[in-house]
Amino acid sequence: FQVRSLTNTVGTLGGDCIHVRGDSCCVSAATPTEEMNGAGNLMDFLDEPFPDVSTYEDFHTIDWLREKSRDTDRHRKITSKSKESLWELIKSLLDAWSGWVVMLLIGLLSGTLAGVIDLAVDWMTDLKEGVCLSAFWYSHEQCCWTSNETTFDDRDKCPQWQKWAELMTGHAEGAGAYVLNYFLYILWALLFSFLAVSLVRVFAPYACGSGIPEIKTILSGFIIRGYLGKWTLLIKTVTLVLAVSSGLSLGKEGPLVHVACCCGNLFCSLFSKYSKNEGKRREVLSAAAAAGVSVAFGAPIGGVLFSLEEVSYYFPLKTLWRSFFAALVAAFTLRSINPFGNSRLVLFYVEYHTPWYMAELVPFILLGVFGGLWGTLFIRANIAWCRRRKTTQLGKYPVLEVIAVTGITALLAYPNPYTRRSTSELISELFNDCGALESSQLCDYVNNPNMSRPVDDIPDRPAGPGVYNALWQLTLALIFKIVITIFTFGMKIPSGLFIPSMAVGAIAGRIVGIAVEQMAYHHHDWIIFKNWCRPGADCVTPGLYAMVGAAACLGGVTRMTVSLVVIMFELTGGLEYIVPLMAAAVTSKWVADAFGKEGIYESHILLNGYPYLDVRDEFTHRTLATDVMRPRRNDPPLAVLTQDSTTVEDVETLIKDTDYNGFPVVVSRESERLIGFVQRRDLTLAIKNARQKQDGVVSSSVVYFTEDAPQLPASNPQPLKLRRILNLSPFTVTDHTPMETVVDIFRKLGLRQCLVTRSGRLLGIITKKDVLRHMAQMMNQDPESIMFN
Amino acid sequence: FQVRSLTNTVGTLGGDCIHVRGDSCCVSAATPTEEMNGAGNLMDFLDEPFPDVSTYEDFHTIDWLREKSRDTDRHRKITSKSKESLWELIKSLLDAWSGWVVMLLIGLLSGTLAGVIDLAVDWMTDLKEGVCLSAFWYSHEQCCWTSNETTFDDRDKCPQWQKWAELMTGHAEGAGAYVLNYFLYILWALLFSFLAVSLVRVFAPYACGSGIPEIKTILSGFIIRGYLGKWTLLIKTVTLVLAVSSGLSLGKEGPLVHVACCCGNLFCSLFSKYSKNEGKRREVLSAAAAAGVSVAFGAPIGGVLFSLEEVSYYFPLKTLWRSFFAALVAAFTLRSINPFGNSRLVLFYVEYHTPWYMAELVPFILLGVFGGLWGTLFIRANIAWCRRRKTTQLGKYPVLEVIAVTGITALLAYPNPYTRRSTSELISELFNDCGALESSQLCDYVNNPNMSRPVDDIPDRPAGPGVYNALWQLTLALIFKIVITIFTFGMKIPSGLFIPSMAVGAIAGRIVGIAVEQMAYHHHDWIIFKNWCRPGADCVTPGLYAMVGAAACLGGVTRMTVSLVVIMFELTGGLEYIVPLMAAAVTSKWVADAFGKEGIYESHILLNGYPYLDVRDEFTHRTLATDVMRPRRNDPPLAVLTQDSTTVEDVETLIKDTDYNGFPVVVSRESERLIGFVQRRDLTLAIKNARQKQDGVVSSSVVYFTEDAPQLPASNPQPLKLRRILNLSPFTVTDHTPMETVVDIFRKLGLRQCLVTRSGRLLGIITKKDVLRHMAQMMNQDPESIMFN
Repeated sequence: FQVRSLTNTVGTLGGDCIHVRGDSCCVSAATPTEEMNGAGNLMDFLDEPFPDVSTYEDFHTIDWLREKSRDTDRHRKITSKSKESLWELIKSLLDAWSGWVVMLLIGLLSGTLAGVIDLAVDWMTDLKEGVCLSAFWYSHEQCCWTSNETTFDDRDKCPQWQKWAELMTGHAEGAGAYVLNYFLYILWALLFSFLAVSLVRVFAPYACGSGIPEIKTILSGFIIRGYLGKWTLLIKTVTLVLAVSSGLSLGKEGPLVHVACCCGNLFCSLFSKYSKNEGKRREVLSAAAAAGVSVAFGAPIGGVLFSLEEVSYYFPLKTLWRSFFAALVAAFTLRSINPFGNSRLVLFYVEYHTPWYMAELVPFILLGVFGGLWGTLFIRANIAWCRRRKTTQLGKYPVLEVIAVTGITALLAYPNPYTRRSTSELISELFNDCGALESSQLCDYVNNPNMSRPVDDIPDRPAGPGVYNALWQLTLALIFKIVITIFTFGMKIPSGLFIPSMAVGAIAGRIVGIAVEQMAYHHHDWIIFKNWCRPGADCVTPGLYAMVGAAACLGGVTRMTVSLVVIMFELTGGLEYIVPLMAAAVTSKWVADAFGKEGIYESHILLNGYPYLDVRDEFTHRTLATDVMRPRRNDPPLAVLTQDSTTVEDVETLIKDTDYNGFPVVVSRESERLIGFVQRRDLTLAIKNARQKQDGVVSSSVVYFTEDAPQLPASNPQPLKLRRILNLSPFTVTDHTPMETVVDIFRKLGLRQCLVTRSGRLLGIITKKDVLRHMAQMMNQDPESIMFN
Repeated sequence: FQVRSLTNTVGTLGGDCIHVRGDSCCVSAATPTEEMNGAGNLMDFLDEPFPDVSTYEDFHTIDWLREKSRDTDRHRKITSKSKESLWELIKSLLDAWSGWVVMLLIGLLSGTLAGVIDLAVDWMTDLKEGVCLSAFWYSHEQCCWTSNETTFDDRDKCPQWQKWAELMTGHAEGAGAYVLNYFLYILWALLFSFLAVSLVRVFAPYACGSGIPEIKTILSGFIIRGYLGKWTLLIKTVTLVLAVSSGLSLGKEGPLVHVACCCGNLFCSLFSKYSKNEGKRREVLSAAAAAGVSVAFGAPIGGVLFSLEEVSYYFPLKTLWRSFFAALVAAFTLRSINPFGNSRLVLFYVEYHTPWYMAELVPFILLGVFGGLWGTLFIRANIAWCRRRKTTQLGKYPVLEVIAVTGITALLAYPNPYTRRSTSELISELFNDCGALESSQLCDYVNNPNMSRPVDDIPDRPAGPGVYNALWQLTLALIFKIVITIFTFGMKIPSGLFIPSMAVGAIAGRIVGIAVEQMAYHHHDWIIFKNWCRPGADCVTPGLYAMVGAAACLGGVTRMTVSLVVIMFELTGGLEYIVPLMAAAVTSKWVADAFGKEGIYESHILLNGYPYLDVRDEFTHRTLATDVMRPRRNDPPLAVLTQDSTTVEDVETLIKDTDYNGFPVVVSRESERLIGFVQRRDLTLAIKNARQKQDGVVSSSVVYFTEDAPQLPASNPQPLKLRRILNLSPFTVTDHTPMETVVDIFRKLGLRQCLVTRSGRLLGIITKKDVLRHMAQMMNQDPESIMFN
């Protein structure tokens, strides 16, 4: 039993994160009052006696069974009404279709927002370097497209586009111009990031980070009010543009999922079916997450699988269909906005002309190993740094931190052409195959003078000086990206991980790819190349290596496999390269899993102490319910009510003295036979109500939970009948139930608490938090046992 | 309360299907002894006292919680042992990797089998018409490929390939030759189908049908011994080739899923991890189903989604990854066998050259409506026919039935060129876009004489006489396929539904497509065409309509949506056509759902009375556990044991008099406080064991389920302590629990039975079959309430 581990991981469950609310990207975790919230009043909902404005409090866990039951009741009511009149029938049809309407709206809005973000980022990224004189709102590319002085050879240069130094001093070249451009680049970056962090701090603290850990937690049934609110949506959209444009090592993919979920939440409020039921709301949010990834990569199927594999908790088949619909609508909305100007749906469109060979699996698997190692390194270093931010003075100066990191990033990034440009452009170039017309440095090969005409299928050539130069710059860029990303992720601005991870992998992959290519060219008589690479053939595609590397690194950090491969498959659009991608993704997952089960999102969930019960963790210990339930051995006995011998005053005292969210009701203290469970909130409201409206209910009135209160002599105070608010079907297990079964029950049924009995007698209670605490304890004691699942 | 409905659907649950075992494609359903099988001995497994050869009997339901718990125990044991020595560590690593090894083997074998089946079907289908003289084992296509006398214009004709009449009489043309060919075509078809049905009857009755309803039932936790056995695998593979080659209106896709599952089951037996645990085995089978669809269509992602959406019951994320791996391996094995001779992975490779226009959504949605109506018609008619087969004399002559249907099929199919060839060839041609070099009848358009050279992007042209001729033949083929498929599916031969359904849709779609195309050509000034189709442009692709129609019809019959669209997406390889496909698939699902919730597989499950608890059905009625539990009002009381006052004789009498599979154990008959549940099988074995080996245990010995048996005077007979076999954590709910929650618990936790209590007292028991029976009752009473889910 390790005390350290308890304070590190379990301790945070108790809510020690609260003091940093608003100061870091950590949402404060559950408060102690959450512990014993009732299982919901399954039967009495239809005649709900009290106003039901907000059913769950902030930072509390929802009861999935109760939500489902409430929805069934609502549905049943509508169905029975629909037979009454045509109008009711139409209403019931509208209700049945509202899910699809919400999906359509989510798709449209998130597609539009993604398009706007793409356009704005393009423009603002270029603004750091220069401006378009013909129309300042044009990005560099758009500026030179519309110009008729652009030549085919030098597509990037046109007189309308001027760098700042040229515009200000008239000199485009020279040391002075370079320094001025350098200075202005840093200045713009600082301005953007300062704006971003200030907006986040002032208007929407929840807009920071990638949002995926929090969305996973929310989808698993936790309430974080405002996390998916309108302000968060607005501010996250704006600050995401600023953060990405500032040139920091972050991407827009994670935050886009958050933005899409905010859209989902927004449209939920249009229909009471979704706004009043936290379970149904989460179905919509799962689909919205799919739409978010769909627009982030232009990969609708990948988006649905991402939502299924990585984000969602409760994913019925109906949600699968709806997610798919939302993802498709979002993707097509984005395509009609056409932000990349090429009618392509996908972020990185690639087309390779040669197949891969079995022997190449060796470097691909090595890239997988690299990806796994990078994932482990990144997660450990980033978590250590985030923990330091939370526990030291550092966390108190988020603005300063962002400014400092932006300054360093801009200072180091400018001199290297591969880090100066935006990261997605870099990845795009690294993925690219060197065609005959490619003018970039990476494609500076020594051409064979005998080659007659430019064809696609160019044989392997020796590398020229440009390629060697690029290799050096890429190596420096790799080191820079690896280090700076660790410090960037988790700062108080919107920041996604996908793009930086992919960039690291793509750089490493391209370097390996060029190395293999040159080896194959210069040593094609080596035994390893002999069988598949004859001289003059196009054997090796370095771009494919970059793609495989990107998949491996992304897999190592997030531990996605299927959705990752599907996203990559949608980018290339061919089954041809699925085997290399799969090999790298699976290797990287295995390597990374060997050093620790958690991906970056789970690690951040643990760090922040969210009450998240992972579906993937397998609980393999031999503990029993009796080891986990409370009261523990030396605790005071369980606070219970009796069915017919507690007075109103007793109940009020109990409510005042404890902060449990509900109380079991037993036949008598002697027999301890359980009859139901009553929620604190219902109890408080019922007594308040009765004292105000019901004559004769005083402190000495007896509270009856039985079906009929006995006829008392008139001298006795009026009894208070509360069977209405009693949940007659509380969930119970016996004290001998293995914890593994209990965990399964909590996970699959989405319970909040469960009562423990032995031969019909009530012994104790287990809440979701007890389960999480127990699991955390067990994992740390015996981590090897969960390594080979 | 409808008596009729009970006898129709519920009655079959009781096992009235048994009398047709071996006589139809119906597996006999659960026998009554299944009803009260124990919840498994969760805690005592490690010191399992009795031999555990076959844990579940045939036609019984498994207990998922118990299987999971057993696997955890096994895993725990291996993990703790692995620290002892290097050898144990290696063994534990091997154990951890065995899942992937099984996947690899499944992929390899099912890919190989699919390739062999494809090659054999190709050859045998052509054998009905003629033979290759240069090598009789060549199919028509292979024969003419290898011939150097084949011209480009007439790729189908070569002297090596001779029709039977030509070979026998020397005359290739003329009425005599036609009649002889016709006659031999029918003869071969009859021979093939006779062989198929005889093999199925004699060697493997389970090899008939598509197998998907049974696999769904097995995956949901039902035991059907031999259904996935070696004999079934062998016979199903052979008879599948025969059945498809005979020209019957059936496909190989469903049976391929069955074949892949048989492979999965076969490789399970290599590892005790899977062979001894029915829960783990089902994880492998889910993945095998994905591999089956993957090779059927060459669509690995679609296969995984099919397994997830349509077939599987328990699908953890680990299974998702493994399914994907198995599906990929299978697809690549198939590709390296290359049965289609074109290096393509997919069954129907298509490439269209023009986009679709928004206005075309109208005919696409109409095709969706057609698909939905066809689905409804087919399901109703087929189920009615299958019911007739089960209940009348018809079911007693399966061989005759197959012969008759084959005869009629061959007789009617030969004269029409679109039904004479194999259905997949037909679909392939219908999907095809008419390029400039296409010589088929369907592409007989009137060419513009000014057209300079053959290009891909041919403008719309007026239809020639060939097209009009083809339209008539296609209409006849459509009617023929619709009628004959209803009678074919369900016969005692392997028969898949995918291909016939797709054929119906593809024919309808192509007809609509040509109609729209000709309308657009002749009336391009109409307002509906004006905006998008100017003269001389290539607006309408009839092949795309065929594809959309195929998706709609398949969707109407099976109610797949996402996996269907993904399979189609993998066939075309472009996101371009996802919207038309999605529109048609969703419309067809909605239309078909409006007439009845069940797809063809669920309908067959209901017809055969399998104990299948569908994950998708939502139970929306207000009944309580107390309405469903037994004993009912007038029944004898529940058979229980007491913890310390039953004698061995009492127990033996109870076992003899009842056929329940387990008994609750209570403190005493007065208090009725539940302490555990004991299984009939364990009880029988324990008593038998004690009587043989333990001195002093006689009929009057008292059975103790308590922790310690009291010290009795020596004169009393020796007590029998049986706490070891007592399951101390039986699952309980209160009598007030809504049935909707109970259904959810059964479904999500995979229970076999659940005890019902009120304030700690045992009241009754609910088994899985009680739940199913209650659901069936409720559905029939009030079918409207489940229409708009």
